[in-house]
Amino acid sequence: MENFIFKSPTQFVFGADEHKRTGKYIAQCGGKKALVLYGGGSVLRSGRLQEVVESLDAAGVDCVVQGGVQPNPGSSFVYQAIEAARAENVDFLLAVGGGSVIDTAKAVAAGVPYSGDFLDFYRGRPVEKALPVGVVLTIPAAGSEGSPNTVITDEENKIKKGTKSDCLRPQFAILNPELTFTLPKYQSACGICDMMSHILERYFTKTQDNAVTDRMCEAVLLAVKDSAMRVIIDSEDYQAQAALMWAGMLAHNNICGVGREQDWASHALAHQLSALYDVAHGAALAVVFPAWLRYCLDEDVNLFAQLAARVWQVPESDDKRQMGLQGIERFQDFLRGLGLPSKLEHLDVPAEAIPQLVEQLHAACGDTVGNFKKLTMADAEAIYKDCQ
Amino acid sequence: MENFIFKSPTQFVFGADEHKRTGKYIAQCGGKKALVLYGGGSVLRSGRLQEVVESLDAAGVDCVVQGGVQPNPGSSFVYQAIEAARAENVDFLLAVGGGSVIDTAKAVAAGVPYSGDFLDFYRGRPVEKALPVGVVLTIPAAGSEGSPNTVITDEENKIKKGTKSDCLRPQFAILNPELTFTLPKYQSACGICDMMSHILERYFTKTQDNAVTDRMCEAVLLAVKDSAMRVIIDSEDYQAQAALMWAGMLAHNNICGVGREQDWASHALAHQLSALYDVAHGAALAVVFPAWLRYCLDEDVNLFAQLAARVWQVPESDDKRQMGLQGIERFQDFLRGLGLPSKLEHLDVPAEAIPQLVEQLHAACGDTVGNFKKLTMADAEAIYKDCQ
Repeated sequence: MENFIFKSPTQFVFGADEHKRTGKYIAQCGGKKALVLYGGGSVLRSGRLQEVVESLDAAGVDCVVQGGVQPNPGSSFVYQAIEAARAENVDFLLAVGGGSVIDTAKAVAAGVPYSGDFLDFYRGRPVEKALPVGVVLTIPAAGSEGSPNTVITDEENKIKKGTKSDCLRPQFAILNPELTFTLPKYQSACGICDMMSHILERYFTKTQDNAVTDRMCEAVLLAVKDSAMRVIIDSEDYQAQAALMWAGMLAHNNICGVGREQDWASHALAHQLSALYDVAHGAALAVVFPAWLRYCLDEDVNLFAQLAARVWQVPESDDKRQMGLQGIERFQDFLRGLGLPSKLEHLDVPAEAIPQLVEQLHAACGDTVGNFKKLTMADAEAIYKDCQ
Repeated sequence: MENFIFKSPTQFVFGADEHKRTGKYIAQCGGKKALVLYGGGSVLRSGRLQEVVESLDAAGVDCVVQGGVQPNPGSSFVYQAIEAARAENVDFLLAVGGGSVIDTAKAVAAGVPYSGDFLDFYRGRPVEKALPVGVVLTIPAAGSEGSPNTVITDEENKIKKGTKSDCLRPQFAILNPELTFTLPKYQSACGICDMMSHILERYFTKTQDNAVTDRMCEAVLLAVKDSAMRVIIDSEDYQAQAALMWAGMLAHNNICGVGREQDWASHALAHQLSALYDVAHGAALAVVFPAWLRYCLDEDVNLFAQLAARVWQVPESDDKRQMGLQGIERFQDFLRGLGLPSKLEHLDVPAEAIPQLVEQLHAACGDTVGNFKKLTMADAEAIYKDCQ
């Protein structure tokens, strides 16, 4: 266990109907005029957005509403939204949506008080100041509602890059499981893969002696595993959606990752698929992560065997490598069972794309990526090839 | 899963040597002059207190230092410390110690800006304002470093009562496992029982569908179980002490208890033992909690069986009641193995004390106590008798 600092000051407001009190929470943060961002029209058609806006009116919070945030959100939308936020003099960003909308809101929040190009923050400049951000979550997946992270695609250079800063942690996040009832099954499955990946990126570490965080990671994985198929069968299963919604936050506010080095190679590999082929993030991870696990198995077979036994119910045996391998197989079977892809071709990514994926990865991350195993570009190429 | 609001804004600073940076964190909170409270002399003799005070000097934070906080901390000390804090015009409370010192600091923090009797807060008056509190933790047990709670003994009436308020959550908590190396084995064991009890009070609930928090509770219990004997054998086992120190915080900042009704009868039963016989809190819980578990087993044998299987490795069987019973036995054996008492007589509490314990419980809690099973005073008497 390594030294760490952990602070997660976000106020989480969880449960049915809570989005109808959004305005109250913005007012508590001192917000007077909010830029409300959302994505596709589903939150509009369902009437949920209207309920949120009515709560702002009731709390005396003025607002400007802007829809159209895309999955794998891009820089051009952010530039426009920064201009709009400045023109309208907003002092608060409200994201009504999933990770794409929240990450966009964070980018805008950092960009408004900054005179340069907001993408500087995604190229290494630290974010030291940002407008406050609030969230009404509609997709349990990215965990951005409780994290300091944001990922944006630089559309000009087709690079998907992330940054993080404690000042980008949302002030509040309203988590009403009912708002997920209209999610298509495939999108729910992608979210499930994303949150499990957030745990696995933290789980695989060379840091020794992680008794508490190992168990916490396994706890969240087990809860997700037990709830996942329930929402695929019945998207209106409130309790299963509630479990996933809370698990998605826990998977990424770093309570499951403190005191240990983390990996994050699989996310980098998946980001290149999304940046070049606009693949859904969770679907890209469903293809890449099992391949990464297979490739890295021999780095620490005992850790793989521990995960296999505790989460995937693989029977104990002296052959830890075999246990680890069975765990990976059960994980990939589980993802397939949710309807997720397992090969590049399922994502309409041709084998010929691999050199370009590696090139983009190199441009984005440098000579190596990840920490559990520091992958060279040759390693990355081998993993992409195993995804065929 | 019920609706909930969760906010844990405390900054946790974890690891070796971190107490030497205490002053920096007080200064970051705007503190100019701190009242530094501690308990017995061990933190003084070890030189740790001096290192903390030197860090305040280095950060330009003035301070007044006051030792002598007792286990089961009492009201008379709090009254004196409130007067001292006012006379010295302090604007920050720093607790260097375990739960007793932190709870005392919280009581003083609430009492200073209040013109009435600070015990009003422990009799139902909400705490709406308090001086900021910081913590340098030396005993992993109470979890007060990350909680909104404080428990004080009203010495005049010999009643141990608690209160809580979000404004009593510490601004920061410095958790350096090295500061626990000098703890006597018995005190470590008491702390272990206390943190496991904090989880069990949350675990036993009539709220249905708690997939995430069930797993989180089990995760912390498993991590504590796996680390406990290591610190009893070798108090300088950094990694095991680190696991316990972090687990003790997680057990009580309520991340393991959100969205479910909680019980807390065992704490109320144990508090009466401490108030009347000055029994160590963890030792009182070691006697009371197994008896409570036995008494309440039939309220939900499946939940008891789940805990037995997942935490105490009791083999699955169709006889859930028997599984639950075995889990309770393994828990009590585990506590005995740590050197903790299992009967009232081990605490030097005579059987004749039971009527008075019940009377005090009634005075403190009213006609019933707990939620998983609403215990009448007759139920409470039966549990105390089972502790004989």
